[in-house]
Amino acid sequence: MISNEIGRLNRIIAPMFLGSGTRPPALDGRSSIRRMLGASEQDDCAAYLLTGEQALVFCSDYVRGPKFALAELGLLSNYDLGWYLAGANLSDIAAMGALPVGLLSVIRYPKNLDDTDFTAVLEGIRDCCSSVGASNDGGDIGTAERLILSASAFGVVEPANLLRRSGAKPGQVIVSSGFTGLAGAIMKYYLASNELSALADSDAEYLLDRWRRVMPRVNHGRLFARHAGVSSCIDTSDGLAVALGTICQSSGVGMVIDRDLVPIDSRVRDVADALDVDVLELVFGDSVDFELIATVDRDNLHQLREAAALEGLEIHVLGAVVEGDSASIAPSEGGVAPLPGVPWTN
Amino acid sequence: MISNEIGRLNRIIAPMFLGSGTRPPALDGRSSIRRMLGASEQDDCAAYLLTGEQALVFCSDYVRGPKFALAELGLLSNYDLGWYLAGANLSDIAAMGALPVGLLSVIRYPKNLDDTDFTAVLEGIRDCCSSVGASNDGGDIGTAERLILSASAFGVVEPANLLRRSGAKPGQVIVSSGFTGLAGAIMKYYLASNELSALADSDAEYLLDRWRRVMPRVNHGRLFARHAGVSSCIDTSDGLAVALGTICQSSGVGMVIDRDLVPIDSRVRDVADALDVDVLELVFGDSVDFELIATVDRDNLHQLREAAALEGLEIHVLGAVVEGDSASIAPSEGGVAPLPGVPWTN
Repeated sequence: MISNEIGRLNRIIAPMFLGSGTRPPALDGRSSIRRMLGASEQDDCAAYLLTGEQALVFCSDYVRGPKFALAELGLLSNYDLGWYLAGANLSDIAAMGALPVGLLSVIRYPKNLDDTDFTAVLEGIRDCCSSVGASNDGGDIGTAERLILSASAFGVVEPANLLRRSGAKPGQVIVSSGFTGLAGAIMKYYLASNELSALADSDAEYLLDRWRRVMPRVNHGRLFARHAGVSSCIDTSDGLAVALGTICQSSGVGMVIDRDLVPIDSRVRDVADALDVDVLELVFGDSVDFELIATVDRDNLHQLREAAALEGLEIHVLGAVVEGDSASIAPSEGGVAPLPGVPWTN
Repeated sequence: MISNEIGRLNRIIAPMFLGSGTRPPALDGRSSIRRMLGASEQDDCAAYLLTGEQALVFCSDYVRGPKFALAELGLLSNYDLGWYLAGANLSDIAAMGALPVGLLSVIRYPKNLDDTDFTAVLEGIRDCCSSVGASNDGGDIGTAERLILSASAFGVVEPANLLRRSGAKPGQVIVSSGFTGLAGAIMKYYLASNELSALADSDAEYLLDRWRRVMPRVNHGRLFARHAGVSSCIDTSDGLAVALGTICQSSGVGMVIDRDLVPIDSRVRDVADALDVDVLELVFGDSVDFELIATVDRDNLHQLREAAALEGLEIHVLGAVVEGDSASIAPSEGGVAPLPGVPWTN
């Protein structure tokens, strides 16, 4: 079924935002944020009442969506694309140490898109927002020659706790919230179609979930923001090598990654074997894993790990911040080399 | 010249945002807003420090840009499209009675887009932001198969002064910030190519400027927000009839527009004559003029007009809010009729 504009608005779009009046979480007792109106009220804008002192962070990301190689191969559904759109934007909020508050989405769709497919996009967005407690605030829905997806998100953080890319200092330790290379590995695996038998179905599904269910690392971001000694943060949306290189550039520092510490998922290793590439090329290269990288004072590392453990959050130490201007890797056999992995270029 | 990604980033994009550290205007002595970082600092998000109590409004609009009929006819430049993108988003902020603070833009461009054209898009965005004192905060720039333009904007308003679409009350007067139908008229004129000689070049240029230099009615919005007795507001981005109908629907009221009061631009009348259509079809129909419509208590109208005159702002009375559920027009010969004009559907 393909409804007209009015039908879509009344039967599909409006109900999708009705339940989105989530009460935004207050940062502390001295500030608050409250939704004043939103998509269900059909105004030009979403509106929030802010009181006290807070830092507002505000980002916008377009996603290729239907132009993702995996979507073109039929491996990502419309629901997955909606979820990805919200997740990619909310990850940027998490990387600033902020609590996500609201998301606006731009969904332009071809006139022949079936109501079921259209609804699935909206449901994916709604459910991802819900997974991190963000309000799904509507946006701009209309037609285009193909499905075009873009969004913007905002969040709040205690001003002193805002995490920048520019805060890394020599002597600090580099930590990450999780494994990288999974999303890139599965994409490269499916693009090399002759290798399709190397991976068990359940392993392929596990890796595909990095695309299908982006999990913005909000809890990690908040932990980093509030913890003493954490001085910079970024997400790995362009791959691990780019994330590390960006912190180096923004902070005016170098990094030495300890090869033996880099977490490697066994399924990524399987893909590397199947494709006959160095697994570190996958771990450091272009991959949309949306993990967070942070730098922390060495004296605060132990406490940070304990605090993370209490919340059930993984923390991996990757290496150290040093004087310099770029990131390198210290292989187990001694010496340093440039980071492996081909960075994402768009 | 077509630079690669790195070249674009360093030579074109970064300098475009360097001058965008405009000091955001404070609403009053009890609240403040200050930019903490932005695009020139290359972080995931723009960040602002908010203190005191303020309402944050937040919107997002995609624009067809290169798919506009007038762009396809070669009548809108890349600079014009950039300006339009920012203007359409900032108009939504103005319609809430808010001060625009920041804009994020999504610019995805085809790989063969020349540096000059790419730069022109960015300059149009920058200059429109600058025209209303908004900060140009970066966003997401990358490639796609064609030029894709989307943006989001935010602003702040005193919580008690937030203008909704739902506040209109029977007995109030309907006012507008200016003439409507100009943008729609010139589009229809150029689409009817056999009529191209009817309009003087200077008149055509005047009407085309509605597309080329969208002027978000921020001063009107702030006047409406702060003035006693103003209870609802909307912009005419989908045409006058849609704007009026939306206030009726959101507020649960009717409206009677006085035909003799409706401001009609002589150039729109010339187009109507050339196309042999009722001029009111153009004035009320689909037209992206980005004027503001507001409703105000009759007792406050005189003061509002005086306050507007002091600021050099036009105010036109269009008619009255009545009991009912839709807008109609009272022709000079007596009786009422549905509003003319075909509404925009996308």
